[in-house]
Amino acid sequence: MMDIIYTEKHCLRNAKTELHGGKLVAPFEAPFRAQWILKAVTEVRHGPVIEPKAYGMETALKVHDAGYLAFLETAWDRWAATGMEGEAIPVIYPVRGMQQHRVPRDIEGTLGYYAQGAETSLTDGTFEAALASMECALTGAESVLNNGAPVFALCRPPGHHASFDQFGGYCFINNAAVAAQRFLDKGATKVAVLDVDFHHGNGTQNIFYRRGDVFVASLHGDPMDAFPHFLGFADEHGEGEGEGANANYPLPPGTQYAEWARALDSALGAIGKFGAEALVVSLGVDTFEKDPISFFKLKTDDFKRYGEVIGRLRLPTLFLMEGGYGVEEIGINVANVLSGFEAA
Amino acid sequence: MMDIIYTEKHCLRNAKTELHGGKLVAPFEAPFRAQWILKAVTEVRHGPVIEPKAYGMETALKVHDAGYLAFLETAWDRWAATGMEGEAIPVIYPVRGMQQHRVPRDIEGTLGYYAQGAETSLTDGTFEAALASMECALTGAESVLNNGAPVFALCRPPGHHASFDQFGGYCFINNAAVAAQRFLDKGATKVAVLDVDFHHGNGTQNIFYRRGDVFVASLHGDPMDAFPHFLGFADEHGEGEGEGANANYPLPPGTQYAEWARALDSALGAIGKFGAEALVVSLGVDTFEKDPISFFKLKTDDFKRYGEVIGRLRLPTLFLMEGGYGVEEIGINVANVLSGFEAA
Repeated sequence: MMDIIYTEKHCLRNAKTELHGGKLVAPFEAPFRAQWILKAVTEVRHGPVIEPKAYGMETALKVHDAGYLAFLETAWDRWAATGMEGEAIPVIYPVRGMQQHRVPRDIEGTLGYYAQGAETSLTDGTFEAALASMECALTGAESVLNNGAPVFALCRPPGHHASFDQFGGYCFINNAAVAAQRFLDKGATKVAVLDVDFHHGNGTQNIFYRRGDVFVASLHGDPMDAFPHFLGFADEHGEGEGEGANANYPLPPGTQYAEWARALDSALGAIGKFGAEALVVSLGVDTFEKDPISFFKLKTDDFKRYGEVIGRLRLPTLFLMEGGYGVEEIGINVANVLSGFEAA
Repeated sequence: MMDIIYTEKHCLRNAKTELHGGKLVAPFEAPFRAQWILKAVTEVRHGPVIEPKAYGMETALKVHDAGYLAFLETAWDRWAATGMEGEAIPVIYPVRGMQQHRVPRDIEGTLGYYAQGAETSLTDGTFEAALASMECALTGAESVLNNGAPVFALCRPPGHHASFDQFGGYCFINNAAVAAQRFLDKGATKVAVLDVDFHHGNGTQNIFYRRGDVFVASLHGDPMDAFPHFLGFADEHGEGEGEGANANYPLPPGTQYAEWARALDSALGAIGKFGAEALVVSLGVDTFEKDPISFFKLKTDDFKRYGEVIGRLRLPTLFLMEGGYGVEEIGINVANVLSGFEAA
């Protein structure tokens, strides 16, 4: 048994378009994902399924820019007011050589300022769903704090690509960062985020890169070959007070479990040395061999195996849902991680 | 009479899609633009129409990154080889907080690395057309150098948004920068680029920002309100050897000719003080009141008026076509600039 935090409000995030392969296609990150996962984790008798509590923005404001959060809240209405017919997709970005810190007045410029890319359309309901997703993370963190028992927050939309002041990669509010901050605010002095999603958790890294109280470890497809392409290299160790508190494990196309598990061992060793008092797991299952947009080769049983490896850390642990796409096995893969963890 | 440099090869740039308003629409920057302009400038007895000569990449390599030019040449084939169904549109960009100088291996990452935004699809034929457009500019520069008489290079695709190593805003090779470089290589010590397109010539500014031999002046929609949004502010004066050799005149929505012309006077005054021996005019006519994607209010007669004002500089002058969209009047507006110039 493991508490599952879930709300149907995730369905408010239901974009119609994702820019992929030069076309606008139905988004990979869609409501059915959470439904498949919920079904699988309840079928294997995880649960109960608990509704999140309401939270304000207090914790989010410690890991995100206030102007960014205000933008997320108002962006859709501003876009819709222009009469644009499609969903809100940024076209121009403050890339190298351009002004880095001037927020344009008009919505097209503002969109680009706060964005990492064009795959993630902003839509009516996106902010409300992102808020509810964050509340799942916070409710989960509170439960772990109160009871010590592990919790699975079935967050959707995911969060780990959302940086201090940018959305992207289907992410808007960084649930893992908010949860880690909550642990700290409630008394922990050191927290670790372990990101096992196929994609580098660039947002989480960005948020904590200069902080020494949160260790961020990410296993992911080499950014030379995989989204988000411009962060997640092995030589990114943190800066200033955060020096040494960031660890990346980029892995090549075709990576199978044995190689992946060696990187996991390194990451867990580093987290142990850091002295984390609580663990937030950014749980993406797009490392699965059948994932439609990733290139690792983990099999369904491997998820149980690594859940058990993480469980042996014996840390108060909050699992947060991140990625995993396209195939119904995302459900059993998530359930396997949780079952493996509990069997440890 | 003014020589017109033109080639039908511009038609090789014929993208099917532009990301605009959250939809993929038919591009504003399309072959009919050049055809309308050619018709108008020949009807008012400019001409003759001259085919460009062939040039290598020698001059382009002095203003663009070699890796970028190689990318442009190979990008479409690399994209097509992936089996992606749409045109090549980048989705993820190296924005703030990300690695700025690592070029990913895969084509999706490479596309984003060399891009400013998502509105400009790369397609089969784009590179060949951009090369032919550059050859129009170089042929025009050579004619001005040899004869002193003004020339109109009917370049398409346009060039002024293309930076040292980024495409965007319908631009791939910066024709104005290549032409200015050619003047310098053939003996000029100081050249000016005057950019009268509605949009800031961010690429041209970027290329010459730290150089003292090319003065860049641009009149354009305030980037707080207009594309490209993140460059073109009044406080960008150049750096290092280029300090003082960049001048921006951002103007607000609804700007009419009187206000625009005052900014032109300032720009021409600055160019005069700089001591330019030759002038490259980045001629966009999207300042026109009926332009579908701009917000200035110039009327058809105003183009003749400002052509005359530029003519009074009495500099060897090369006009290069940049923007101007959607309405057939782009032709007469261009013709008017050239006629005004000759009447000076």
